[in-house]
Amino acid sequence: MLTNGWFFEDDMAFASAIQIKNSLYSTKSKYQKIDVLESVKMGKVLLLDNKVMVTENDEFYYHEAIAHTSISIHPNPKKLLVIGGGDGGTIREALKYNTVNEIDLVEIDEEVINVSKKYFPEIASELTNPKVKLHTCDAIEYVKNPMGALYDVILCDSTDPEGFALGLISKEFYKNSLLALNKNGIYICQSGSLLLQEDEFNTNLENMRSVFKYVDVIVSIIPSYPGSLWSFLIASNEPLNKTIKNHPKGKTKYWNSELHEKLFSKPQWLKEKYFTLQTT
Amino acid sequence: MLTNGWFFEDDMAFASAIQIKNSLYSTKSKYQKIDVLESVKMGKVLLLDNKVMVTENDEFYYHEAIAHTSISIHPNPKKLLVIGGGDGGTIREALKYNTVNEIDLVEIDEEVINVSKKYFPEIASELTNPKVKLHTCDAIEYVKNPMGALYDVILCDSTDPEGFALGLISKEFYKNSLLALNKNGIYICQSGSLLLQEDEFNTNLENMRSVFKYVDVIVSIIPSYPGSLWSFLIASNEPLNKTIKNHPKGKTKYWNSELHEKLFSKPQWLKEKYFTLQTT
Repeated sequence: MLTNGWFFEDDMAFASAIQIKNSLYSTKSKYQKIDVLESVKMGKVLLLDNKVMVTENDEFYYHEAIAHTSISIHPNPKKLLVIGGGDGGTIREALKYNTVNEIDLVEIDEEVINVSKKYFPEIASELTNPKVKLHTCDAIEYVKNPMGALYDVILCDSTDPEGFALGLISKEFYKNSLLALNKNGIYICQSGSLLLQEDEFNTNLENMRSVFKYVDVIVSIIPSYPGSLWSFLIASNEPLNKTIKNHPKGKTKYWNSELHEKLFSKPQWLKEKYFTLQTT
Repeated sequence: MLTNGWFFEDDMAFASAIQIKNSLYSTKSKYQKIDVLESVKMGKVLLLDNKVMVTENDEFYYHEAIAHTSISIHPNPKKLLVIGGGDGGTIREALKYNTVNEIDLVEIDEEVINVSKKYFPEIASELTNPKVKLHTCDAIEYVKNPMGALYDVILCDSTDPEGFALGLISKEFYKNSLLALNKNGIYICQSGSLLLQEDEFNTNLENMRSVFKYVDVIVSIIPSYPGSLWSFLIASNEPLNKTIKNHPKGKTKYWNSELHEKLFSKPQWLKEKYFTLQTT
């Protein structure tokens, strides 16, 4: 909802409110409405179907959380799959690891990539890196037959599990993802607001646990997302050892080795409710 | 600003937006405007001068962060001073320590206490505890002459440093607070949004560092506060050893021993900008 010069997501009764200067671009792609807004405080804002995907000023919390908590704990991350993530932020962070030499980016909506390249060049900076191979198709179909590829880390940087993205938290999808991972491969996905989307989180967690032996959660802050207390479910068929095995080269703004383990710590209510019999 | 049934703070171009059912109470005390709103998702909301103080559903993030990161690391916390905090949440948490036998509550505005007791009984539950002594006066004056008291922990749970609360981050105030602390005493205060109030944070940090030998910061999430990424400055004239020395009895919803040390971890930008020459 854009009202009195402020934008906020109005579907969950609680959200982040962003004061807007003006609209820079608006279109309807085959899959969704795409908007670029110029805000007073948060830089440019990318909306997909009226939900905040990134703001220039806080995108690094999201992208560093999803990329560095997962890739840094893999012993030898070489080949990655990024699902969604057409803005390029996750890829930018993933390419900070010297070992990573190939990333398949499966983004259903090419228009997201085009808009990101034009309006968010700092986030999209690595989308043209020769290590990145773009597949504009549905990830649900892609993981059924990833052309023989086996991944070290799969990062699902998708929109919420609604509409075309609903299948991204299904058991079938997780079964196929597991088959597309190397034996010690790691799967991570954004799994929504812990304040406002607990049902989706719970479904996601149950489905993931029915497929993967080890499931844990990373809790981070994403100021511009509704409720701000954001979750990323992480899974593997081998124990999730949180020790950092690879350090990203280059600068980070949020993640560091001290913060790394913090991101695996849980609020007491979350621990009691979902992780008392923790298998990690 | 209350617009189209949503409330958000409109002074910093970014805020949390809370959908409101109705207004339960509104008054103007000698010091400030006080409102109680009923929200759709966050329970009842207390506003002081149109700023969110607490919501029933996320108040525990704030109160547990300020109380347990500080009181649990003191070797023998007996006598505490709580500044502001008229809603009672900080006192409720502080009284979870068996050693704590006396709390002076210095709240300038008695009306905040009355409203909290009536509309937020679960937060205000310990305000009538015989260990709590209420002083309805200005904390800036109070710390000049705390009637010979020496405190183990001072917790400043105040509104933002504006208007009558501006002096609560001054050097003079910190000098007086230091004099009111025991030798190994600890001072902690909410020090604002790291996304939106960096100037105030910086002034507060500089003033605190000019008085206390050791200053550190706790970074927590407060979903309903603007920017949600919240800071608490903590200071002492003895090294701040983060080891837990006392465990709160009874349940917590946010804080736990695993999360405890992690609340002292910092985003990389914050570490580089303010804590590179860390004295703790």
